[in-house]
Amino acid sequence: MKQGKVWLIGAGPGDPELLTLKAVKALGQAQVVLVDDLVAPQILAYCPQARMVKVGKRGGCRSTSQEFIQRLMLRYARQGLCVARLKGGDPCVFGRAGEEVRWLAEHGIACEIVNGVTAGLAAASLCGIPLTLRGVARGVTLITAHAEDGSTPDWSALATSGTTLVVYMGVTRLEEIRACLLAGGMPGATPVVMIENATLPQQRQCFGTLAGMIGDAAGFGLRSPAVLVIGDVVAHAVRGESAERDTSPIERCA
Amino acid sequence: MKQGKVWLIGAGPGDPELLTLKAVKALGQAQVVLVDDLVAPQILAYCPQARMVKVGKRGGCRSTSQEFIQRLMLRYARQGLCVARLKGGDPCVFGRAGEEVRWLAEHGIACEIVNGVTAGLAAASLCGIPLTLRGVARGVTLITAHAEDGSTPDWSALATSGTTLVVYMGVTRLEEIRACLLAGGMPGATPVVMIENATLPQQRQCFGTLAGMIGDAAGFGLRSPAVLVIGDVVAHAVRGESAERDTSPIERCA
Repeated sequence: MKQGKVWLIGAGPGDPELLTLKAVKALGQAQVVLVDDLVAPQILAYCPQARMVKVGKRGGCRSTSQEFIQRLMLRYARQGLCVARLKGGDPCVFGRAGEEVRWLAEHGIACEIVNGVTAGLAAASLCGIPLTLRGVARGVTLITAHAEDGSTPDWSALATSGTTLVVYMGVTRLEEIRACLLAGGMPGATPVVMIENATLPQQRQCFGTLAGMIGDAAGFGLRSPAVLVIGDVVAHAVRGESAERDTSPIERCA
Repeated sequence: MKQGKVWLIGAGPGDPELLTLKAVKALGQAQVVLVDDLVAPQILAYCPQARMVKVGKRGGCRSTSQEFIQRLMLRYARQGLCVARLKGGDPCVFGRAGEEVRWLAEHGIACEIVNGVTAGLAAASLCGIPLTLRGVARGVTLITAHAEDGSTPDWSALATSGTTLVVYMGVTRLEEIRACLLAGGMPGATPVVMIENATLPQQRQCFGTLAGMIGDAAGFGLRSPAVLVIGDVVAHAVRGESAERDTSPIERCA
């Protein structure tokens, strides 16, 4: 029997227009799509022919286990089907692609990664923040505050790395992040922006400082999903009238 | 007279299929396109109506100055034109977007950033490398070795940060990168991969270690443009038959 294959597809940060052409093509050929909850419904319009299997968190329930998702991919591929595993952002950045690629290789299933725009980069752009800037930040670090294995990043090293920090899944760990970065030598006056629902019409952002970010987040009512951008580049955000988020559809320019 | 606007568009890592839908739309409406040399020619097929202005490096000549590019954008926008500034990768990651957004805002020109897939992430994916992996790397740092202001990144902090390092524009600075990371405490046995022409049909990669990377690069004949991926995740690359780069066009699966 013909073997199927699996695409691990990044759906991008939220805005359906930030999907890549390659993702659209792969979705158009998929026979089964395993989809995370954070993926915008408009993106599913690119695969009306496919069987849709939701594998994200539902309401307050526990998320579908990684092991179960991997077994599902394998089962469908062994039925000879083309399977798309559709995730928010980029599958290689906090997207478990490493485990999935290995699992599929061990079982002899062909697999292809389709990269996407990762949420942190797009969120910063919409706030007018350059993540790298000559004389200010020579690089950018994407980091998650949440780890199932209980480990924590080396915040002290990150505090002094001179790179802009983009923290994913940090909303429930603001106290820890703030304390560790301050302890690591990052000044309390370091500018911070917390961005909720990156690139979606309901995106909201709150500018502040490392020292004040707990109070700022409470006053703002910050909720997941959100990313934090921490570093001096945040002070270089261009928030003037002309550079504000252009909410008019692109169509209007021509 | 009607003001124009400027889009700062990320063309992605090389593969024309990794362009976003938003980039295609904007290109289709642009009246002038200022294009870097690293952008694949196929991408220009999305803007046949536009006047094309090359602003990248040509042969051995000096690159067009940033100041000149900014003045060009302003001149065209003041003529009421829709201007697309098309760059490789993501405009906010080593793409000078910060300076351009500020310049345009100061001159009252509307500006919109269209993010792209940055080269380092896509290059790693095609090598089967997960940039983040539970128990191995909690994050990823994108960094450039090259700076016009002569400054250097804090390689010591990066060496101990526990994040995967993705180094852009590092080919001419391999000696410095290696020496600084070793001095910062990174083990010489740390796995490294050097990736040339990321995501293009002519992509080549060379796996090795931090200690051996100078000799490896010489034997391999490494040339720009290339990115280096440094960190334990490289040892977790899945390079088996089924996960090797799938060079067949996506069309063949259906």
